[in-house]
Amino acid sequence: MNLLAKTTFAVQEPDRLIAAQVQTLLDLKTKPRRSLGRLESLACQVAAIRGDVCPPLPEKAIVMMAGDHGVAEERVSAYPQEVTAQMLLNFARGGAAINVLARQACARLVVADLGVKGEVSAAPEIRNHRIAPGTRNFTREQAMTRPQAIVALEVGIALATELAQAGVALIGLGDMGIGNTTASSALAAAFTGAPVEEVIGRGTGIDDAGLRRKLDVVRRGLVLHRPDPADPVGVLAALGGFEIAGLAGVVLGAAAARVPVVIDGFICSTAALAAVGLAPHAAGYLIGAHRSVEAGHRIVLRALEVEPLLDLQLRLGEGTGAALAMNLVDASLHILHEMATFDGAGVSDSGA
Amino acid sequence: MNLLAKTTFAVQEPDRLIAAQVQTLLDLKTKPRRSLGRLESLACQVAAIRGDVCPPLPEKAIVMMAGDHGVAEERVSAYPQEVTAQMLLNFARGGAAINVLARQACARLVVADLGVKGEVSAAPEIRNHRIAPGTRNFTREQAMTRPQAIVALEVGIALATELAQAGVALIGLGDMGIGNTTASSALAAAFTGAPVEEVIGRGTGIDDAGLRRKLDVVRRGLVLHRPDPADPVGVLAALGGFEIAGLAGVVLGAAAARVPVVIDGFICSTAALAAVGLAPHAAGYLIGAHRSVEAGHRIVLRALEVEPLLDLQLRLGEGTGAALAMNLVDASLHILHEMATFDGAGVSDSGA
Repeated sequence: MNLLAKTTFAVQEPDRLIAAQVQTLLDLKTKPRRSLGRLESLACQVAAIRGDVCPPLPEKAIVMMAGDHGVAEERVSAYPQEVTAQMLLNFARGGAAINVLARQACARLVVADLGVKGEVSAAPEIRNHRIAPGTRNFTREQAMTRPQAIVALEVGIALATELAQAGVALIGLGDMGIGNTTASSALAAAFTGAPVEEVIGRGTGIDDAGLRRKLDVVRRGLVLHRPDPADPVGVLAALGGFEIAGLAGVVLGAAAARVPVVIDGFICSTAALAAVGLAPHAAGYLIGAHRSVEAGHRIVLRALEVEPLLDLQLRLGEGTGAALAMNLVDASLHILHEMATFDGAGVSDSGA
Repeated sequence: MNLLAKTTFAVQEPDRLIAAQVQTLLDLKTKPRRSLGRLESLACQVAAIRGDVCPPLPEKAIVMMAGDHGVAEERVSAYPQEVTAQMLLNFARGGAAINVLARQACARLVVADLGVKGEVSAAPEIRNHRIAPGTRNFTREQAMTRPQAIVALEVGIALATELAQAGVALIGLGDMGIGNTTASSALAAAFTGAPVEEVIGRGTGIDDAGLRRKLDVVRRGLVLHRPDPADPVGVLAALGGFEIAGLAGVVLGAAAARVPVVIDGFICSTAALAAVGLAPHAAGYLIGAHRSVEAGHRIVLRALEVEPLLDLQLRLGEGTGAALAMNLVDASLHILHEMATFDGAGVSDSGA
């Protein structure tokens, strides 16, 4: 059995019994029942995933994958394609938003080049997992071959496995790739069946003419490839990106290692949708970070049955929302570890 | 001029020019313009309040005020009234949710007793600003006298001023008081004119019969006192609570000292509404932490024109939402301080 098949097979449902035990513990704390809302369900989820009623504060990592997109030649982005490679260097030097926010979250930042176009200077901070210098234009042909999609998925699986083995117990997803909201819109339409106009947005900031081009490009891609959502690898190969398939692999590898995954915005959520297509139980490992401005994000989150924690009108990607949400995961575990119980504190409980 | 009048007079509008300068700086950073959404507006707001285009990461405090409510005898809470005093001790011992979350936020927690009913053991961690052992039942008489309301406001002003002088540059609000959602619903209806049924909620968890009682109690209070929103002190005296008036004072003192205020849930937001009634420019100093489950919160936030940052279904109070949101204020300033510019990083800018 290959790594992909072995990993999807290994993804088990988080332990519901532990989730229920943690809720019982939280109900003894000095607060009205469930009054800490999502913080309580977060603690239950993390405990259920880790298989531990009192999981320690997790070591954290953000996996930021970059790739270029052939479809960028259809002028669907406000930025030129060389920005992907330029931003990789910016990540290596520590100057991008995700560098700042990962530092604040005390999360290790792992930057991986899955297939950026053109020359990328070697930098020790960038992992070289280049599959090809960008995908192909999906309005003309498959974005990648099926074997390429599997390689990208397996790069993600191997990376998540490595991090889990090194003690990382919370992984955030991040993406960089000029053109990748277009690929994600196509994937979102393919996986959810939502009308194309509902999964299209302005990405990094295209104008109205660009938005119309993007709509047309995604429609042409869907007509050309007729993607079958029952074959997630085929859908990724036809319309996806190296970094998107890689991030789907990270979700699978993390879930197989019982590590929760904080998804970021539209692109990472679409990658998670592909992962859940391959291993339905992976859905239980996902923590929604934020609700992006990008229209398709709502639809993908709904398909994942994930409620985001933050509503900050972010539309940057890179894992910025995931990094910000990690503080809330820590908060949920601090509550579980440190709050007094009604009995211990001598406070009257109403049972409410 | 008394302290209250002097303070409301001293509240100036935050510096719009500085906000615009900070936005210009943020637009040079390596990200699509405004793509960090609320994080960018937060940095602009904090800078404008502090009068500094690059304000340092703030020292933080949560001011948690407690008081009892005469209206609790109408059985409008799921908890007995002695819980207020019991929780004060829990705060002093460090076992409550706000202790945990303030520690995580590296915020000093200042707990003040503005008028809890019955015996409260002296504890060095609790500031004694007791005005009376609880307010009176507003369905029969004024909750407090006008001079009592002014004392409570001035306690808050003095506390915020003291913290600002000690170097605190970000203050979060927290509340504790059995019955205080009922008082807040009455205040919210009085200040906004919203129908009573829209500002009523289950508080810490009352049942349907309790909810009907609460509706009736608030209606009777409004009929009895006919509060005039143009006289915020009169409204507070008729329907408010010592801790609510105290928190309104904290907003005023903080705004006069150019310190931003993170409001918490329904009770603290209602206190902020009273403060804005007294000094309209105080609105510019408010940072919305979260959207509470409590129905009236939306209406009060709308009246304040404040958009909350978190949507975590919290309904605990104590300042828990405010403590969680402080991390986002820090994040906004880290971005301002640490991100590279397009020029500095050699990244192509689209101007989008």
